[in-house]
Amino acid sequence: MSELFDLIVIGGGPGGYVAALRASQLGLRVAVVESTHLGGICLNWGCIPTKALLRSSEIHHQLHNLSAFGFSAGNVSFDLEKIVGRSRAIARQMGRGIGHLLKKAKVPTYDGFAKLNGREGEAHRVDISKDGQAVVTLKAPHVIFATGARARQLPGLETDGKLVWSAREAMTPKELPKRLLVIGSGAIGIEFASFYRNMGSEVTIAEVADRILIAEDPEISAAARKSFEKQGMQIITGAKVGPLNKGENEVSTTIESAAGKVDLTVDRVICAVGIVGNVENLGLEGTKVQVDRTHIITDEFCRTGETGIYAIGDVAGAPWLAHKASHEGIICVEKIAGRSPEPLHALNVPGCTYSRPQIASVGLSEEKAIAAGHKVKVGRFPFIGNGKAVAMGETEGMVKTVFDAKTGELLGAHMIGAEVTEMIQGYVIARTGELTEAELMETVFPHPTISETMHEATLSAFDGALHI
Amino acid sequence: MSELFDLIVIGGGPGGYVAALRASQLGLRVAVVESTHLGGICLNWGCIPTKALLRSSEIHHQLHNLSAFGFSAGNVSFDLEKIVGRSRAIARQMGRGIGHLLKKAKVPTYDGFAKLNGREGEAHRVDISKDGQAVVTLKAPHVIFATGARARQLPGLETDGKLVWSAREAMTPKELPKRLLVIGSGAIGIEFASFYRNMGSEVTIAEVADRILIAEDPEISAAARKSFEKQGMQIITGAKVGPLNKGENEVSTTIESAAGKVDLTVDRVICAVGIVGNVENLGLEGTKVQVDRTHIITDEFCRTGETGIYAIGDVAGAPWLAHKASHEGIICVEKIAGRSPEPLHALNVPGCTYSRPQIASVGLSEEKAIAAGHKVKVGRFPFIGNGKAVAMGETEGMVKTVFDAKTGELLGAHMIGAEVTEMIQGYVIARTGELTEAELMETVFPHPTISETMHEATLSAFDGALHI
Repeated sequence: MSELFDLIVIGGGPGGYVAALRASQLGLRVAVVESTHLGGICLNWGCIPTKALLRSSEIHHQLHNLSAFGFSAGNVSFDLEKIVGRSRAIARQMGRGIGHLLKKAKVPTYDGFAKLNGREGEAHRVDISKDGQAVVTLKAPHVIFATGARARQLPGLETDGKLVWSAREAMTPKELPKRLLVIGSGAIGIEFASFYRNMGSEVTIAEVADRILIAEDPEISAAARKSFEKQGMQIITGAKVGPLNKGENEVSTTIESAAGKVDLTVDRVICAVGIVGNVENLGLEGTKVQVDRTHIITDEFCRTGETGIYAIGDVAGAPWLAHKASHEGIICVEKIAGRSPEPLHALNVPGCTYSRPQIASVGLSEEKAIAAGHKVKVGRFPFIGNGKAVAMGETEGMVKTVFDAKTGELLGAHMIGAEVTEMIQGYVIARTGELTEAELMETVFPHPTISETMHEATLSAFDGALHI
Repeated sequence: MSELFDLIVIGGGPGGYVAALRASQLGLRVAVVESTHLGGICLNWGCIPTKALLRSSEIHHQLHNLSAFGFSAGNVSFDLEKIVGRSRAIARQMGRGIGHLLKKAKVPTYDGFAKLNGREGEAHRVDISKDGQAVVTLKAPHVIFATGARARQLPGLETDGKLVWSAREAMTPKELPKRLLVIGSGAIGIEFASFYRNMGSEVTIAEVADRILIAEDPEISAAARKSFEKQGMQIITGAKVGPLNKGENEVSTTIESAAGKVDLTVDRVICAVGIVGNVENLGLEGTKVQVDRTHIITDEFCRTGETGIYAIGDVAGAPWLAHKASHEGIICVEKIAGRSPEPLHALNVPGCTYSRPQIASVGLSEEKAIAAGHKVKVGRFPFIGNGKAVAMGETEGMVKTVFDAKTGELLGAHMIGAEVTEMIQGYVIARTGELTEAELMETVFPHPTISETMHEATLSAFDGALHI
């Protein structure tokens, strides 16, 4: 095996491994360097294992709501070790799958940390070390940083792995905390809040902003809050969390907000207050790669200021989403291979939160669309007006569409309710294809499906909704 | 209330009531005549109540597969009366909803049978009778027939409401048949087979064609068959069902096929061998409305041979789908109102079967695409390669795409597996917007979702699939 490659990908997460697979398809000699686990956080400690947990928690919820559907069951119980074990087994299975894919694609993987170490002619040198020991030096004219990100630590709210959990401990509980405080209400915080609430924990969410799920349209945030509160969660927005007073096996704190002070004692705290890019120890010093706070600055083809150096995914900045990382990987590699990929349009990247109810969106919220100077037409349709939703017993939800009043462009779509994470792709396809309201109206959505709410929310924006 | 209208809609199903609502939005004075129940078969005895039943049966399946997810429950039982009662209550609720919508739209509804009775100047006369008694005569220059369809009765296989069930008895069982024969494997037959199998019945399907779900791509048919057989169903294709020998509380018959003769004794038979349009007693004699076997012949705007007479939905022929009826209703009314609607493209109408696993498709199958003269590129992606499907425990499924090799047009998309009925709309949007493979490839599908299989199946057609 030569140590000279066309491309070295540093990081084997959903950005890096996808970039490597695409590079291999395009005939590039490519290597992947991964320090910890192929598949990255997403596959090992993020997207995938949490979905397995959430699936179990939905079953738990279902088991406690059987009567309406004509069923009964006695002695409903769960084995948390088994639930966590299933989640871990799936993460391992998927991780192994990535290994197989790379092997099949003849992409060598190097186990260790990578660091740029100058040039040799056209080639960048990448030193790989493991446990502080030099392993090998690779060379390639193109190097992609796909090093990902890690949880942000706030002073006073540092995770300790015991009482104050990061996502990692939160997805491998030994026992169910009876009382839980979740600090932060982005997708990660909300998903854990939903998992634990479904499983029976008392859950409080503290969010510093004035609403939960700040990335979503405010109407969706409000609907989500209402739904979570109905499920029994306590939600405090505009929250200032005081010092965490740790006891033997519990944590006390005081949360201040416009609503007053709340004294709270919980068994565990989950801290999910954002993430920071892994920009350290990459050997960027002395290169023209620019770093802005915790992310590498890139252009529309993921190029940094240094020729032949690229960054994709979380380390290249928001939105911190696996599918954004993968797509950047493909664009970056296709450009390197001399193809003409379309740059990524951030407003065509959907976001999903897999709580109960689910939340999904793409494009601009109403307020951002207006702030961007659009005259808008807004449509709304509630799940309660949809036959399939009623038949499923899933009447909590809504779809909101935002169109440009002049051009008919779909500026944004915002959904909350059952199945919306699987449905949002229709709107993403519409945005990517630059469809207007006319084509969405002409589309024959199958009946009976919840996706008909997507049609009605479009009709509604133009005063043509039928079932309301 | 004047008896002179701009438009009379005969039939209050998903074709008729939607046509009336749209007509009201467009300022037409419109009336609906309905003989039996607003919402038609779809809402009262079709799409909606069956989805409620299927939802219950999925829960039953889940309750018997708890262990893998970390749960246990004792004494799992169901109350069939409650399950059926929920389904009926939802049908009633939705039916009342249609009544409210029409009332809100100020559309009068007439209870009775309608029959054309000549003209008075520009206006057609429509006589309404109830129980054989004349009720009133309405007049309008435009009349839409939306009279729907009914189950086809085959000689020797006639439903009797007791041992040989139509859909109506099949969705209101007093007790669960231990042994069930389903004759016909279209969407209706398959959905009942799936419901009863999930609930624990022994199910045999007899299909006269050489494969089940004949409307679907053969690969999807084969995958569905494999899945149903794995669930324990007996499936006989190329089947000739012999005389039904009825006992007191069971039915015996012999089914011949290439595989030999099977003697079968079951408790109940469900006959679902197609439908025939309700074209009788409409007063079409002496008009220029043409009837082909059991459907009214129409053009692309639902016009018949007689000026001012239209037909939409099942009575206007295949595909017999509620959403096709609704969409025709809208097109028909918009044309009447002087708008310029786009005609319905049959290949953009999706079809769904809500069995376990679900099946959904739009456009041409591979074989039909080739038969139509296309050089095709075909993509496939299995659910087992998808992280969300694995996390959900839903690894049985696949997506198949058929593209025109020259133009990149998405000719057809075919899906089997969890959630596909909610996902197919993405492909329908793509077809309606005339997107090509390039735009589908550029689309950023959210991770982790099962909808990523839609992306991979597109990439696969062009040798770019990543996770396989």
